[in-house]
Amino acid sequence: MNSDYLAQLRKLFEKLPGIGPRQASRFIWALLDFSLEERKNLSELIGALDKNLARCAECFMAGKTSPCSFCAKGGSRDRSKIMVVEKDSDLLNIEKSKIYGGLYHVLGSALDPLEDSAGAARERVRALYKRAESAKPREIILALSPNKLGEFTASYITKILEPLKIKTTRLARGLATGTDLEYADETTLRQALDNRK
Amino acid sequence: MNSDYLAQLRKLFEKLPGIGPRQASRFIWALLDFSLEERKNLSELIGALDKNLARCAECFMAGKTSPCSFCAKGGSRDRSKIMVVEKDSDLLNIEKSKIYGGLYHVLGSALDPLEDSAGAARERVRALYKRAESAKPREIILALSPNKLGEFTASYITKILEPLKIKTTRLARGLATGTDLEYADETTLRQALDNRK
Amino acid sequence: MNSDYLAQLRKLFEKLPGIGPRQASRFIWALLDFSLEERKNLSELIGALDKNLARCAECFMAGKTSPCSFCAKGGSRDRSKIMVVEKDSDLLNIEKSKIYGGLYHVLGSALDPLEDSAGAARERVRALYKRAESAKPREIILALSPNKLGEFTASYITKILEPLKIKTTRLARGLATGTDLEYADETTLRQALDNRK
Amino acid sequence: MNSDYLAQLRKLFEKLPGIGPRQASRFIWALLDFSLEERKNLSELIGALDKNLARCAECFMAGKTSPCSFCAKGGSRDRSKIMVVEKDSDLLNIEKSKIYGGLYHVLGSALDPLEDSAGAARERVRALYKRAESAKPREIILALSPNKLGEFTASYITKILEPLKIKTTRLARGLATGTDLEYADETTLRQALDNRK
Repeated sequence: MNSDYLAQLRKLFEKLPGIGPRQASRFIWALLDFSLEERKNLSELIGALDKNLARCAECFMAGKTSPCSFCAKGGSRDRSKIMVVEKDSDLLNIEKSKIYGGLYHVLGSALDPLEDSAGAARERVRALYKRAESAKPREIILALSPNKLGEFTASYITKILEPLKIKTTRLARGLATGTDLEYADETTLRQALDNRK
Repeated sequence: MNSDYLAQLRKLFEKLPGIGPRQASRFIWALLDFSLEERKNLSELIGALDKNLARCAECFMAGKTSPCSFCAKGGSRDRSKIMVVEKDSDLLNIEKSKIYGGLYHVLGSALDPLEDSAGAARERVRALYKRAESAKPREIILALSPNKLGEFTASYITKILEPLKIKTTRLARGLATGTDLEYADETTLRQALDNRK
Repeated sequence: MNSDYLAQLRKLFEKLPGIGPRQASRFIWALLDFSLEERKNLSELIGALDKNLARCAECFMAGKTSPCSFCAKGGSRDRSKIMVVEKDSDLLNIEKSKIYGGLYHVLGSALDPLEDSAGAARERVRALYKRAESAKPREIILALSPNKLGEFTASYITKILEPLKIKTTRLARGLATGTDLEYADETTLRQALDNRK
Repeated sequence: MNSDYLAQLRKLFEKLPGIGPRQASRFIWALLDFSLEERKNLSELIGALDKNLARCAECFMAGKTSPCSFCAKGGSRDRSKIMVVEKDSDLLNIEKSKIYGGLYHVLGSALDPLEDSAGAARERVRALYKRAESAKPREIILALSPNKLGEFTASYITKILEPLKIKTTRLARGLATGTDLEYADETTLRQALDNRK
């Protein structure tokens, strides 16, 4: 049915990150002004997503293959380290900075303390446990957001991994570019002082 | 080809309003975490857009039918007035405010002085001319943005419509809710004073 | 006493518009880095304020003399109009725009519905009544903020002045430069439509 | 002279941090609405500033006495450490966080590479050299802003102090509360990774 049509399309657009009802409507109007061919292309490309893109079964990174080029045997990455990130975009930014050569593990999001244990991110933590149990990396680096949810996620993962006795570290807190000393919070200042050099 | 796939999808997402390269990538990662069925639905709904939504051949409003329910004969709208708006979302906001009962004409965007005369918005101005010539409304109300492009668009349309001798008006400038008198510009103040009552 | 000193100075700085405790402290540190002479000058200039600046006894505008150059007899302003503004800075902006040649009446602020009738702005409304009663202007123009407090102030003044049977107008609402039609509120849209021309 | 009066007062207000011409005018109007007594108090308090507040001759902190309570002999602070900060407000924030018990050295501002060597901040760097030469602290901690000017200031001070062979450290860079891993810059990420624990 016709009125369903718009509601359905709007609802799916609202599942995209950062898109609310207003923006979803604007997308529909914009699509109407796409050429027929562009709309056909977009439809087909979305329909063919799982033939062209996949989450790596090891690290859950989005890529063309599973296992991804990082996890695949014979790759050039340092397999002794696994860096846990929340989002694909965090991973991308870290890769862009060329500061790290190890493997990753993408959670999809921070863990939500209020969410039950069936959530997607929690499943990926369980997968991390199994992966670490069998691959025995020397270090697992938690590159999680410096906020409450990131703290919770870090504590949770640390506790889960404890039985494996693998060294688990966290990215340091400190002064980020642009931090104003006049307004910095105690945690940031304390760690910036502790890690001074 | 595979690397083309991502580039193509990203490029189409970037054609949506307000979406840059970074957001386009985030959309692709989010789609990867949609269920297979959701992705299939989105693909099919986009593919079926032109069966479910159309621009009215008269007023270019997005709607289920063409002519739209406003333009269709026997409708309840005041056919003596045509209000020219830039965007579907402007029209929607005006409808929501229930201040107007006439017809509309949607340009799609303001006219760009630098753009050649083949642009979509200019075609719709030509369509407005023909529409006004045959329907002979008593008034054409220009509800365009109070900025440079809106000014240009208003002048351009006024000049185009001149031969038809139809009364052409513009929404008044004045103090908008939240305008700060201390910072208001001269045009706004002058019209707020001229139109005082 | 010494600890009183800082607290007292900080408190007085906090009475300046837009200054909170943090900014007040910064002012004190900055003053400490002024030269002795600069500090002496600032102290003396503030002490001599009432010899150099006054509120006009007629219109309450800040100026060098009372009556101010606008209210003084023999001036070039149109004495048939009084424009009521909230703040000196509103007046200054209107003067800068050169759209108005009449007299003013400065309230100091909008009226606060919760404030008792002894407030400074209410006293200036009473002064406006007396001024209008004796000067009998042809029009009183309310140039008040387009928000709730401004609305309240306008209604209040209109009611107070009613017995005088003087034409009382308000600056028009409409589209201000930069108003986005997609987000404009109903009052703004309605008046922009009503005042179209 | 009268017109000088306003210009002079405005100019002095503009020397306060964050105050431009518009805000300076607003201050003058606000002062006009202070009571006579408040204005007299403000004038006297500013005039008496140097009797009530001073920069410590050792560390340049603003305080009631010189030497300040931190630098005075017999105090409880750890005299083996000097932390160099740009502003009094940085110092205040660090004190509030209770992470540090040593002495300070307040520069007044970061050094400006374009400024000649007579600037106030450079004089305080020279004073730091003499202070360090005679007091021989075990560590000088540079708590400077994580931006270009802070970097320049840190390099400059490090070079100046080199002959003294005193351990000179800098607050660590890393993830500050609220840093978004997706947008963090390379320097921040690299140091957050290097200092992980």
